[in-house]
Amino acid sequence: MSELMYQSSKPVFAHHLKNLSEILQTAARDAKARSIDPKVFLDARLSPDMFSLTRQVQIVTDHAKGCCSRLAGVETPVFVDNETTFDELEARIQRTLSFLAGLKASQFRGSDTREIVMQLPIGTLSFNGFDFLNGWSLPNFYFHYATAYNILRHNGVGVGKRDFLGVVPGMKAKGKIAKMMAAKPTAKTKKKR
Amino acid sequence: MSELMYQSSKPVFAHHLKNLSEILQTAARDAKARSIDPKVFLDARLSPDMFSLTRQVQIVTDHAKGCCSRLAGVETPVFVDNETTFDELEARIQRTLSFLAGLKASQFRGSDTREIVMQLPIGTLSFNGFDFLNGWSLPNFYFHYATAYNILRHNGVGVGKRDFLGVVPGMKAKGKIAKMMAAKPTAKTKKKR
Repeated sequence: MSELMYQSSKPVFAHHLKNLSEILQTAARDAKARSIDPKVFLDARLSPDMFSLTRQVQIVTDHAKGCCSRLAGVETPVFVDNETTFDELEARIQRTLSFLAGLKASQFRGSDTREIVMQLPIGTLSFNGFDFLNGWSLPNFYFHYATAYNILRHNGVGVGKRDFLGVVPGMKAKGKIAKMMAAKPTAKTKKKR
Repeated sequence: MSELMYQSSKPVFAHHLKNLSEILQTAARDAKARSIDPKVFLDARLSPDMFSLTRQVQIVTDHAKGCCSRLAGVETPVFVDNETTFDELEARIQRTLSFLAGLKASQFRGSDTREIVMQLPIGTLSFNGFDFLNGWSLPNFYFHYATAYNILRHNGVGVGKRDFLGVVPGMKAKGKIAKMMAAKPTAKTKKKR
């Protein structure tokens, strides 16, 4: 059980943070190629009462570090939310990845039944580690990650679900799909998603 | 390990399918209230080369039944993709929930190391059950679930992340946040997400 708590948290978050980093780099190149001010993408939102791309990316990293630190029983690193460029968001992702890299599987042992208490300005949330990971952290992480991706797709950035999934760990592919899953999607081969 | 395979798949999918059902019911009511043809929402997409809301919902159910059937070692039920109304999408979600309800925890035992082979028209994908769940099914499921939600938010439907997360299993809340997490969001209290 405890081995699973590690395997289904830290490597999963790290995998998708790397995918998000690639997606944002594609977006930054796309802005340059189309002569669009990068701020247009960074400030974009799907609805006036939803968060901007910048905020979505900040929250993605917050859930990754917030979840893993709490499961591992160490202090959650606090990042100031002051990024205003793609480079600064990239630095934040890399800082999150460095923090995750320092956590060991042994620190997650027993975290499934351990009580996790989140002190927030507006109250307290508590769960056991299993429910915290599966009912709170993963759904929130994927929500903001998919929303960041959707904001960019909505703005015409040429990424596909292959970029969102990344090279799926442990997956073997045969036939036509092998090429699709291994290769970067292009305007020509990109499938609807 | 095997107990975890069950706990982090079937109940997670079922939980979010119920949330999706509620979100779609809100959208259907909203269409009626704003005198919008429901087809406008059902056919909506975030980008011309992304799938419509209807297709997103179909794929959400496909990942839920595809994942749980394969982990449990039973045949995957095939649904014809012919839904054209909110009621028909609701029926598809309920059919998926009924199928999941029939699967027992014991059927998932050992699925973490079992080989999962997906035969597709364009090739074959294979993984062990753990990688299939964590690297393929959950990211895909959340991707299409969040995209369905984002399509509706983009069209002004009054749902919030509280609806996306649902009542988080095992979570206890104290203070102001307890009310926020328990109550349905309203136009007045809805937080940016």
